[in-house]
Amino acid sequence: MPDDPYAAAVIDLLGVLAYGELSAFERLCADAALAPTLDDKAEVAAMACAEFGHFQQLREKLIDLGVSADDAMRPFVAPLDAFHASTAPADWLEGLVKAYVGDGIAADFYREISVLLDDETRALVLEVFGDTGHAAFVVSKVRSSIEADPRVAGRLALWGRRLMGEALSQAQRVAAERDALAALLAGGGGNGGMDLVELGRMFTRITEQHTKRMAALGLAA
Amino acid sequence: MPDDPYAAAVIDLLGVLAYGELSAFERLCADAALAPTLDDKAEVAAMACAEFGHFQQLREKLIDLGVSADDAMRPFVAPLDAFHASTAPADWLEGLVKAYVGDGIAADFYREISVLLDDETRALVLEVFGDTGHAAFVVSKVRSSIEADPRVAGRLALWGRRLMGEALSQAQRVAAERDALAALLAGGGGNGGMDLVELGRMFTRITEQHTKRMAALGLAA
Repeated sequence: MPDDPYAAAVIDLLGVLAYGELSAFERLCADAALAPTLDDKAEVAAMACAEFGHFQQLREKLIDLGVSADDAMRPFVAPLDAFHASTAPADWLEGLVKAYVGDGIAADFYREISVLLDDETRALVLEVFGDTGHAAFVVSKVRSSIEADPRVAGRLALWGRRLMGEALSQAQRVAAERDALAALLAGGGGNGGMDLVELGRMFTRITEQHTKRMAALGLAA
Repeated sequence: MPDDPYAAAVIDLLGVLAYGELSAFERLCADAALAPTLDDKAEVAAMACAEFGHFQQLREKLIDLGVSADDAMRPFVAPLDAFHASTAPADWLEGLVKAYVGDGIAADFYREISVLLDDETRALVLEVFGDTGHAAFVVSKVRSSIEADPRVAGRLALWGRRLMGEALSQAQRVAAERDALAALLAGGGGNGGMDLVELGRMFTRITEQHTKRMAALGLAA
C-alpha cells in the first residue's frame, strides 16, 4: 500500500468496488439459477456478465496502479460476504429486487464519493455504475408479479427496507475500519471532503433515490 | 419449426448449442463459487462470461431465422440437465476437469458435424467453439495439484472417463430423439452425410482428442 493517503484511499475504493462487482456477478449467477423461464435466465446472466465486465475494468486499473486485485479486494471480502449472507434472497423476486435496489444504493453512494476523486478515477467509477439497461427488465417483472398477486407487494416492501438498512450498516462498518477511506470522505485526500452537514445531505439524497426506486417497483419505501 | 428438414436440423443444432452454452455458464458460475482464491474465481468467471457470449451469438442467429431461443432450446433442456446432474463436480478440481474435458468433447463433436452445414452456420459453430484461451489455466491448475498430491491423479482420471461415457450416452439419446438431427448426420440434409464407417471414424477421432486432453492434464484416459 502506498504512503500517500489519497493513493491508499483510491486503492481501497477500487478494491471494494472490484469485490462488489465480483460478488454481484456471483449473486446474479445464483439468481439466474432460480429464473422461471429460459428468457429470464438469459436476462439475469447478461446482468451477471455486465458486472463481471466492470470487475475486469477495475482490475485493469488496479494493475496500472501496481496493485493486484486480490490484495486490494481482500479487506472487503468479509464485510461484503456478510452483507450478502444477511440479505440472501429467498426466491427469484427477492433476487431481482436486491439486484435493482441494492445496486442502486451502491451506485448512488459511489457516485457521491466520486466528486472527491481525480478525473480519471472518477470517470472509471461513473462508467462502472453507468446504466446497463437492465433496470427496465427488473421493474417490469416485479410490477407484473405484484399485479398477478398483490400480496407480494407487502413482503417485497419489507425486503427493500431491510436491504437499505443492511447496506447502511455495512457501509458504516467499512468506513470505520478503513482509515484511508474515512480520511477521503473527511477531506484528508486533499481534494476537499465532506463535513457532517454534507454527509447528512448525501445520505438524504441516497434515501430519496431509494424511495424513487421502490416507487418504480410499485413498493412503499 | 420449418418443413424443410435441413432448416429444422439447423434450428435443432443451434438450440442444443445455445442451451449447452447457457448451462455451461451456470455450471462455471457454480465452479467459481468453489474457487480457492479470488484470482481463480475471476478466471472461472471469465470463462463463464465467454460461454454466455457464445449463447448470445447463437440466440441472435436463431432470431434471424425467426425462432425464439426459448423454443429452440426447450427440447434439449431435459437431456442436458440430466448430463449435468449425472456429472456434478464434487470439488473445484473436478469442476476444472469437466470444463476442459467436457467442453473439449462437445467442441470436437460439433466441429465434426459442422462439415455438414452451410458456410454461414458452420462459421458460427466454429467461432462458438474457438479457443477462448482458458485451457492453459485449467491445465496448469490441474497439473500443479497433481504435483502437490499425486493421489489426485487416480481420482481425476476416473472422473475424466466418466465424463466421456456420460457425454456419449447423452449424445446418442439426443440423436435418437431428434429426427432432424439424425437425418442431418445420415445425409438427409442434402449436404452429404456420414455413413456408419464415417461415423465410426468420427468417434475414433473424438476419442483420440480426448486422450490427448487427458494427457495434457497429466491423466490416463
